[in-house]
Parts: sequence; structure tokens; C-alpha cells
Amino acid sequence: MKDMFGNPVYAAIIDSALENAEFPSTPVKLYAPIQYILSLSGKRIRPQLVFLGADIFGYTNIDSLVPASKAIEYFHNFSLIHDDIMDRAPLRRGKPTIHHKWNDNVAILSGDGLLVKAYEELADCPTESVPTLLKVFNKLAIEVCEGQQIDMDFEERNDVTEEEYINMIRLKTSVLLGGALEIGAIIANASLENRQKIYDFGVNLGIAFQLQDDILDAFGNTESFGKQVGGDILVNKKTILHILLKKVLIFQDHSVFEAIINLAETNPEKVQAMLSLYEKYDILSAANILKEYYTNLAYQNLNSIDVEAKNKTSLFELADTLMNRSR
Amino acid sequence: MKDMFGNPVYAAIIDSALENAEFPSTPVKLYAPIQYILSLSGKRIRPQLVFLGADIFGYTNIDSLVPASKAIEYFHNFSLIHDDIMDRAPLRRGKPTIHHKWNDNVAILSGDGLLVKAYEELADCPTESVPTLLKVFNKLAIEVCEGQQIDMDFEERNDVTEEEYINMIRLKTSVLLGGALEIGAIIANASLENRQKIYDFGVNLGIAFQLQDDILDAFGNTESFGKQVGGDILVNKKTILHILLKKVLIFQDHSVFEAIINLAETNPEKVQAMLSLYEKYDILSAANILKEYYTNLAYQNLNSIDVEAKNKTSLFELADTLMNRSR
Repeated sequence: MKDMFGNPVYAAIIDSALENAEFPSTPVKLYAPIQYILSLSGKRIRPQLVFLGADIFGYTNIDSLVPASKAIEYFHNFSLIHDDIMDRAPLRRGKPTIHHKWNDNVAILSGDGLLVKAYEELADCPTESVPTLLKVFNKLAIEVCEGQQIDMDFEERNDVTEEEYINMIRLKTSVLLGGALEIGAIIANASLENRQKIYDFGVNLGIAFQLQDDILDAFGNTESFGKQVGGDILVNKKTILHILLKKVLIFQDHSVFEAIINLAETNPEKVQAMLSLYEKYDILSAANILKEYYTNLAYQNLNSIDVEAKNKTSLFELADTLMNRSR
Repeated sequence: MKDMFGNPVYAAIIDSALENAEFPSTPVKLYAPIQYILSLSGKRIRPQLVFLGADIFGYTNIDSLVPASKAIEYFHNFSLIHDDIMDRAPLRRGKPTIHHKWNDNVAILSGDGLLVKAYEELADCPTESVPTLLKVFNKLAIEVCEGQQIDMDFEERNDVTEEEYINMIRLKTSVLLGGALEIGAIIANASLENRQKIYDFGVNLGIAFQLQDDILDAFGNTESFGKQVGGDILVNKKTILHILLKKVLIFQDHSVFEAIINLAETNPEKVQAMLSLYEKYDILSAANILKEYYTNLAYQNLNSIDVEAKNKTSLFELADTLMNRSR
């Protein structure tokens, strides 16, 4: 077990299920990349959400949750493979991406194969749930595609609003978290109303988490954040900080902002220059207000779910861990 | 209606369903390419097979077959989008391919989106059939991916056997035909045995049709075949003719064969030179024997299906049309 996260029993079941997942040995270039990306692991938050989404409704038939949790993890990895091609990313979790280690064609096709494998796992879920699971899964899957396209569209735009940005991260990253929880809830036979609430909890928590990620990239400390601070600033990424700053900048500062944007990606002064501008306008506070807004929504969603309070402990703990809160 | 094929009632329903299929208007670069490729039409053989696979079992609830037939057509077009990227094909049905008209990223993502849309259609099939349909669909989908990888692997190999070639075309093109028929049969509630037979019929007919395609590329006349005769020879494509020739070539002719292979793609004498070698070894007869073998298997499969003979008329006519046979 690598980067353990959340409930240790669920984490162990997920690790074992993914490690023992069997794929055909040939065609090698179709299946070896799939096994490669799945072996890179990561925190496996998403498959864990399937278990937690059932657990809260008192569901105890853990084995029958395994295929759905694999489906979610496979889908997530499919999207990473294809996104990495589109973003020309050389590394993923510190290792070469598939298109880099093999080539683009291998990455396209093995991504396709992994998406189909996700649907194969879905077909292995409890039969009576399959029609509903398929609809929920399809909805999140097409939304993730939409989010990825909107994100790519943003690269060519300079007028992205807060609202558009939040919608993009909702689609690109958060609906998968909400969907994973809802899928657990469906298998646990939760009411429609409770399903909606746990989905909303996941989506809002996902948005808050992504906003926090943007904040930490600029204001975190390298050690606890685990990646280079200021990376987003160096590549002019349109994070929530970038968008909020543009919104409040007085016109006299436009040229200062443009000058920073035009600094080379390799210029070490670029990060400090942008941070000064963020500090001048107190963008950290503005971003935190937004993050807190979605965090609070998520906690409200969880509170409103109609089950005993003790059943909610695991999800509250998860939210606390993700949002670095103590309660 | 464009290139009408098969049963005119079914053809009209399919055309109307595909023309009226609604996609969101944004993100434009996700959905416009999907609408573009679906508008290029083609003969729409595959969605028609869903109808015919139900029709033979006396199923009359035509409306409930529409989502499954759309799922098959969407899947087929998804595979065309991604295959065209991998093959660097500039044209599809005489029009620019998506990666050519837009770019690779747009083609990757809109292909992914169309695959998800295929599963959305599957989720709209009669609920009681959905779990079974999902399994059958997943099986054909992963096999098509395997076939595409094997085909790409063949480009780097010079020792492909007949058996390997047949297996590749079975996976890459034929299981989709068999699967489309089986999906119709599942919705029509056919027996497991009949489902297997109609699937085998589709697969064997598909193999025979692909072999015929290889034969016509070298030996057809341009007018009736609709594409340049000898195109496969010019690019040294490993067709069944190429493979059968290599198998029987006496060693004294190896250098002749290699010399032809090494002629430029633009050399007009290349086609004639290879045709002479094909004629010397009577490769046309050998290929026809193989084609007839699979054609006969398909007819046997159809004959053995346990329904009244009159129900089989449409599928016999389809097979006759595809294989240019008269009965």
C-alpha cells in the first residue's frame, strides 16, 4: 500500500482489487500502458468515495462495491492518459506519461481501451443497479469531456470570468467526485433526495479542493504542497487567483500585470513579481472567501443528508482532511 | 436520404434518428466535430443490422431499437475519428478528417465524447435489456481496440500469417457487425443459442466482406469499386493478397517481390508489377477460396437459426448484396 488515504479497510480492498486486476497480455501496446498507469497509483481518493457513498447509508456488502470503485478509478486514469496527450505533459506522478514512454497512438488507443474497461466494471455491478449506474456514469463522463474542452478553450481567452472558471472545474474535476459518491449511494439503494445531496456534497467539496489547490500553488510552502510553488504563475495559468486579480486590477496596473505575464517562464523573478501584485490586492483573501463558500456548501449538503449523524463521521473526516480543517 | 441500403423503412428511421439527434451547442469544439462526422453519413449498414437482428425474431417494436442502432453508429464513428488520427488520414468519405479540419486534440476529445454518447444511447434501451446489452457492447468495443492495435503492429512486421490477419480483421471490423445483430436479437429476446448464431453470421460475413474488399482493391474495376484500384499495392498494405503471395513465393522470386515493394508509392508501374506476380501464383483464386469459406460459414450460420425460413429473407438478401451473389 502506498499513499494511504481515508478508511484503511477500504483503501486495502481498493489496492488489492487494482493490483489483482487482470488484463490480457496481448496486444502488448494496448494493455501494457493500461497496467503501467494503474500501477502509478496516487491517493485513490475517487474509488474510496464509492465505498464512503454507500457506507453512509449503512450498506455493508462491501464486495459488491468493488467493480464500481474500479470503474471510477479506470475512468479517472483514462482521462489522465488523454489529457496528458492534449497538454503535452511529459510526467505524471513523477513518471513518464504514456504518450512520452510509448507514443501518441499508443496513448490514444490505450486510453480508449481503459474507458471501455471502466464500462466493463460497471457491467459487473449488482444487475438491478446497472441501468441507473450507467446513466449516472455517462453523465459524469460527458461532463468531464466538456470540462476538458472548456479548459483548453480558456487557454486562448483572456476574459474568463470567475463563474466560468468555477463551472469549468466543476465539470473537469468535481462531477467525478460527486458521481463516485452517488454511485455508492445508488448501490446502497439511497433515496433520490439523499443521492442528490451526496452528489452535491462531492461536487462542492471538489470545487473547494481545486480552489485550494490554486491557492497553495502560489501561497503554499513547497514541503507540504509537494510541488514547486509558483508553477502556475510561471506558465500564466488562468487560476482563480489570476482571474480574481484581473477583475480588481485598477487600469493603471494593467501594464504592470502584462509585463509580468510577458516575463519568461524561466525567469525566477516572475513568481515574486506576481505574488506582490496578489498581495497588493489581497487576492489570497478573495480566493479564500470563495473556497470557504464552497466548503461550507459541502458541509451543509452533508449535514442535510437524512441519516444518523454517526454515519456521517467518515465523510466529515474526509472533508476535514482534504480541506485541512480541524473540527 | 443518401446512399440507401437495405430495408427502406429501417433506413429511413435511422436517417431520421441520426439527423434529429441533438447535441449541446457548447463547448463548440467538442460537439461540432461529432455533428460533422455523423453528417458524413455513409451507408449506415451497422445501425441497420440492429433492426435486422431483431426483425428475424419477429420483433415489431421498432421504436425501441432506435437507441441501440444509434449506439452502434456512434461507436463506429468514434472508432473512425481515432483511427484517422492514428493513421494520419487526411480524408474520410471524401471530406477532411476531424484532426485535419480542427486538430489532434479536438479529434481525441470529440472521439471520447462520441464514445460516451454511444453508451448514453445504450442506457436508453429497454431497461431490462440494459445489463446484457452493456456486456455485449463492452466486449465488441474492447475487441475493436485490440484489432486496431494488432493492425498497427502489423505495419512493423513482415511475418504476418493468414490466421493472424483473419483474426485482426475479425476484431477490427467484424465483431461490430456480429455485435450489432446480436444486440437486435437481445432486445428481441432471442434464445442464447440463436444469439450466438446470428453473431457468428455477422462475424463471418464481415470477414468475407473484408477479404472481398482486399480482392477488389487489386482486381476490381475502378467504376464499380469506387476507389482507385491498386491503392493497397502502392502503399504495401498487408492485405490478404500480400500475405498469401508471400506464403507461396518460391525463393527465386523473393528479390522480384522485394523490388516491387521498394518501388515508390507514386510509380504507376508498381501496381502492374505486383498484379503480374499475383497472376503468376494465381493469388486471386487462393483469396477467393478463403472468401468463399467465410461466406459459406455465414450462410450456414444463418440457415441454422431456429426461426421460420421466411424471417430470414432480409438477412439473406443483405448477405447477397454485400457479397455480390445472386441466388
